[in-house]
Amino acid sequence: MNELKLDTKILIVGLGVIGGGYAKALTYGGYKHVRCITKEPADVDYAIAHGMIEYGTHEIDEKLIAESELIVFALYPHIFKEWIEKYQHLFSPGTVITDVTGVKTCIVREIQEMLRGDVEFISAHPMAGREKSGVEYSNAEVFRGANYIVVPTEKNTENAINICKALGDALGFAKISTLTIEEHDKMIAFLSQLTHCIAVTLMTANEAPNLEKYTGDSFRDLTRIAKINDKMWSELFILNKDALLEEMDAFAKKFTEFREMLAASDSEGMREEMRKATKRRELFDKPNVN
Amino acid sequence: MNELKLDTKILIVGLGVIGGGYAKALTYGGYKHVRCITKEPADVDYAIAHGMIEYGTHEIDEKLIAESELIVFALYPHIFKEWIEKYQHLFSPGTVITDVTGVKTCIVREIQEMLRGDVEFISAHPMAGREKSGVEYSNAEVFRGANYIVVPTEKNTENAINICKALGDALGFAKISTLTIEEHDKMIAFLSQLTHCIAVTLMTANEAPNLEKYTGDSFRDLTRIAKINDKMWSELFILNKDALLEEMDAFAKKFTEFREMLAASDSEGMREEMRKATKRRELFDKPNVN
Repeated sequence: MNELKLDTKILIVGLGVIGGGYAKALTYGGYKHVRCITKEPADVDYAIAHGMIEYGTHEIDEKLIAESELIVFALYPHIFKEWIEKYQHLFSPGTVITDVTGVKTCIVREIQEMLRGDVEFISAHPMAGREKSGVEYSNAEVFRGANYIVVPTEKNTENAINICKALGDALGFAKISTLTIEEHDKMIAFLSQLTHCIAVTLMTANEAPNLEKYTGDSFRDLTRIAKINDKMWSELFILNKDALLEEMDAFAKKFTEFREMLAASDSEGMREEMRKATKRRELFDKPNVN
Repeated sequence: MNELKLDTKILIVGLGVIGGGYAKALTYGGYKHVRCITKEPADVDYAIAHGMIEYGTHEIDEKLIAESELIVFALYPHIFKEWIEKYQHLFSPGTVITDVTGVKTCIVREIQEMLRGDVEFISAHPMAGREKSGVEYSNAEVFRGANYIVVPTEKNTENAINICKALGDALGFAKISTLTIEEHDKMIAFLSQLTHCIAVTLMTANEAPNLEKYTGDSFRDLTRIAKINDKMWSELFILNKDALLEEMDAFAKKFTEFREMLAASDSEGMREEMRKATKRRELFDKPNVN
């Protein structure tokens, strides 16, 4: 394929909270041929009932795969790899495939290497999600104002990169950027994986009863993402272990420094950190949101 | 005074983001005599212009203080103490005073001890705030669905405790609880102060450029409170140092344990923590909000 158009045949493989969000954003945005293959028949029924897709099945439908021009994989990393190994012979020449996987080092090159030469894989990461999993929690609105990151390698063509960016645009993302695999995984270790480690730790560090009776919104905000898909995130953490350990250690070091300032009643030291934090946080305000 | 009524003469001392929220909630809620004393004449003008108060001044108005039945102090802890020392002779007998201070150990007993015997101080903590300071950011809506904690000592009467609870109710808080000073400060060290330490640390732990281009909402949520009033929070941290250091150490220990699981690729260990976190986080959902 050369261009994303409203009549491009798009297949989404894996209709969970993200795949479902893609289906809604595209179909409700006027794309006429958004189809899906997903494991659970009930999820196909849900998608049909909500007008999210043109057609869907829980089976490996050879004709459906063959006629797809753009295929989005929204699967767990190890299942994504297995799927490609097993079924890539069903793709038509010229098909572009992309993904939504949260880490890139352990997956992008491996897939590009095993993939047929007449099909192109261009990787991407939509920086938006929900703390709940499942198609019934999917919501195209989470992409509005959010960041979409295209992660090309030296194997990718300008054409596929442009199609991938056009997909991010069609989904409604506010900002579309490009990073290398290594830049992406370092960034994601800090911005996303470390924050999930902190939220989980905070949620399990104190088991005193009745705390929920007294909480304010600070604690709620810091632990929203402690409601976590344990299967997916533990897999993503281990796939990006080195980068994540580095960010965890940098955070722990800084946290200890702040602790020492407090122990020494170093008011000015703490205030300086707080002023830096306040100033730097302004950069991260969502446009027109917070 | 014996009862909070719509015609009770209420004085708010310190019209910042919290004092201003109190003024709005009470006046807009039908309380007819909400007055204020605050440092900046411009803040009085703002409050008058927005119909938040019946009357206000930036001066020590002896008549205004003498006729107040309920006085709410929304000041920095050290300024609150100074104020009481300097002006408590102006209170009328039977006046009830309360506060909004974020820590209690270093302030409640001290004020109760220095206070005249014919005036009663009942301490409280509204668990709601904004990351910005100043009356122009005050908003009564932040109290809706939030927690209000009354912190009585053995010196308090049932009457004053009931008036303080009635104030929480009038302000629109969803849940009104009672804690001892020690319980309050231990709780606040974990739920509020530790979370602010984490947010500030996270915001200063990585100074790589352009991270804001790639961020998702997780990082935004965990750092919302990194926009922090450095003067107030450093004072509150030092006033509650022992309890906060204890919570920081407990968090750091748990964080290190999680780090070791990751280093060992202990998927099941991490998943167990994530499942615990997910389950426990449900307790903290705001009624009808998240």
